[in-house]
Formats: sequence, structure tokens, C-alpha cells
Amino acid sequence: DLFKCQIFREEEEEMEREPTRVMVAVNESTIKGKPHPSISSKRAFEWTLEKMIRSNTSDFKILLLHVHVVDEDGFDEVDSIYASPDDFKESNKSKGLHLLEFFVKKCHEIGVSCEAWIKKGDPKDVICQEVSRVRPDLLVLGSRGLGRFQKVFVGTVSGFCVKHAECPVLTIKRNADETPSDLADD
Amino acid sequence: DLFKCQIFREEEEEMEREPTRVMVAVNESTIKGKPHPSISSKRAFEWTLEKMIRSNTSDFKILLLHVHVVDEDGFDEVDSIYASPDDFKESNKSKGLHLLEFFVKKCHEIGVSCEAWIKKGDPKDVICQEVSRVRPDLLVLGSRGLGRFQKVFVGTVSGFCVKHAECPVLTIKRNADETPSDLADD
Repeated sequence: DLFKCQIFREEEEEMEREPTRVMVAVNESTIKGKPHPSISSKRAFEWTLEKMIRSNTSDFKILLLHVHVVDEDGFDEVDSIYASPDDFKESNKSKGLHLLEFFVKKCHEIGVSCEAWIKKGDPKDVICQEVSRVRPDLLVLGSRGLGRFQKVFVGTVSGFCVKHAECPVLTIKRNADETPSDLADD
Repeated sequence: DLFKCQIFREEEEEMEREPTRVMVAVNESTIKGKPHPSISSKRAFEWTLEKMIRSNTSDFKILLLHVHVVDEDGFDEVDSIYASPDDFKESNKSKGLHLLEFFVKKCHEIGVSCEAWIKKGDPKDVICQEVSRVRPDLLVLGSRGLGRFQKVFVGTVSGFCVKHAECPVLTIKRNADETPSDLADD
């Protein structure tokens, strides 16, 4: 057990390295009556926790970006940063904040540190701009993916970001069993 | 310290979960006189070790796939599997095997388990077929990426696999400072 403790202490020192900063772009569901996160962004987030971060929560930091599509309403281009569930209590409970709150809560439950913020604009452009500004180690994007017999690629945002984002990009498609009857829904 | 040991033991149990199986597609350099791995596949592999696996080597298993482009020479469509540096000693030291040996050695140095094999065919098709057959949790691909003023997307293999591979795909571009003078080189 003394030996084990020593191994543990070495591992602990190892963990003091800079965490891997993972930016996850999240958006709202387009399906009426569905809770806020889209199927594909929820799936991408959960995959990242289960398959990449696993139990190594201190090795990673999650940066949650929600791009609020413009001309819907007058949302300020604020850079409020949300890092704990408490940060949402005082604030205006708009749709975008509800969305971020969902993901920030999950991060706190599993004990991985996070930051979350909202930007407005065209998602593909804003995501690439934020990558250039924030310099994450990795960008994670959910994608509607391709049905087995569909010829059109739906994930234009992910396609654009794989080409243009200045960091590695992880694209995660929805599971087949999560795909709604209308493939354009998410 | 007793408390620390207990934490360690719990972590140890946690680690007995199935490892995350990461398929990394690797290819040879196209630059004359350069050592075997291409800049982009070496970069993708090293990024995976440093930023994703980090010190959590027992949480991951690396599956190294090299697709030998057809009609160059008559290479058998063998499925020999290489999992340790010793496996290469007796075998024919062809280019593809040298390539896999490079990556298998690195895996052994850092203590992450791996398997490596060669298939022949068109890389983009074979990679997607192997994903469907082997069912990894993640496919990692290096990409030549875009120069700042280039309009053409060079990474046709990664573009195809992001769309068609039946698992999440991580695309990792070369660093700007690693890009050779001729962008088509790798």
C-alpha cells in the first residue's frame, strides 16, 4: 500500500500539468416541445465526458460556447462567463442561458471545471472566431450526420469548422436510434 | 495517506472499465528522403497521446491502421496484427511495416496498449470499412489542412471520413510551422 501511495502521489503531480482545454459548441433543439439542448450537441457533450475525459476530470477543462443566431431578437454581444450553477441564479433566464445551465450543471456533477458563454452571429463563423480568440486544444461539434440513404450532408457547421477552425476538430454524429423522423430536426 | 490510498483504490477500480478504443489512420510521408510517417499522421498521433490520453494510458487502446494504396505493388490483403515491437523482428521490413513499427514503439514507450495492421485499397473507403468492422469509439485522422490563403481543401480523406465513418472523427491539421514549402507534400 505504501508503494501504491507513492504511485498515487506521482500521478497527482502529473495532473498538475495544464489541463486539455476542450471547447464544446452547443445549440438548442429545433424540435417543438423538446427540452433545450439539441440531440446532437447533448450527444457530443456526453461522448466527450464518457469516452475522452472518463474519470480523469482534473486533466480537462470544458469551454461551452453557445452561438445565438442573430436577427431573432436583440441579444447583447455580452461575454458573461458562467462557471458554476450559482452563476445562473441572478441572471435573465433566457433560452440560451437555460441551455448553458444544463451543461454547466453536468460538468459540476462530474467534477470537471468549465466556463460557458454566449456569442451572437452565424454559428460557423463565430465558432471559428472564438477558436482563434480562446485557443482551445480541441473543438467538439455535434452533427446531424448522414442517414444511410441520404446523399446530402446536413452538418454544414461541422464541415466548415473542420476545414477552417485553427485547432483539431472532433465531429460526433447523432446515434441512429436518436435520429428524429425528420432528419433536418435536431 | 490511508485516505489517499483508498481514493487510489477507487480510481483503480474505475479504470477497469473498458478502455476507449481510438483508431488512428497513419500513412507515409510523400517527401523524398523524409523518414516514414507523414507530418500530418505523426502530428495527429502525438496530439492524441499528449492532449487526450495524457497520463491515463490504461484508459485507452490505440488501433493503428495503415492503408497501403493499391496498384503500387502486389501486397497481400493480410490482417497480420502487430501489438509489440517484437512482432516486427521476423517480418518482412516493407515500408508499411516500418511505418507501423514507428507508432507501435511509441505506444510501448508510454505504456498504452495498441494493435496495428495494414489493409490495401483506397484509403478513404478502407478507413470507413475498417471503422464499420472494428467499431472503434473514435477515428483520428491527420490532415494537411488549409493554408491561410489557399481556397482548395486538401484533406479529401478526412472530409470523406467525417461524413461517412460510423463513429466520431477527430481531424488534426498540421501545425503551420510544420507545413512544407509545397503544400501538397506531407
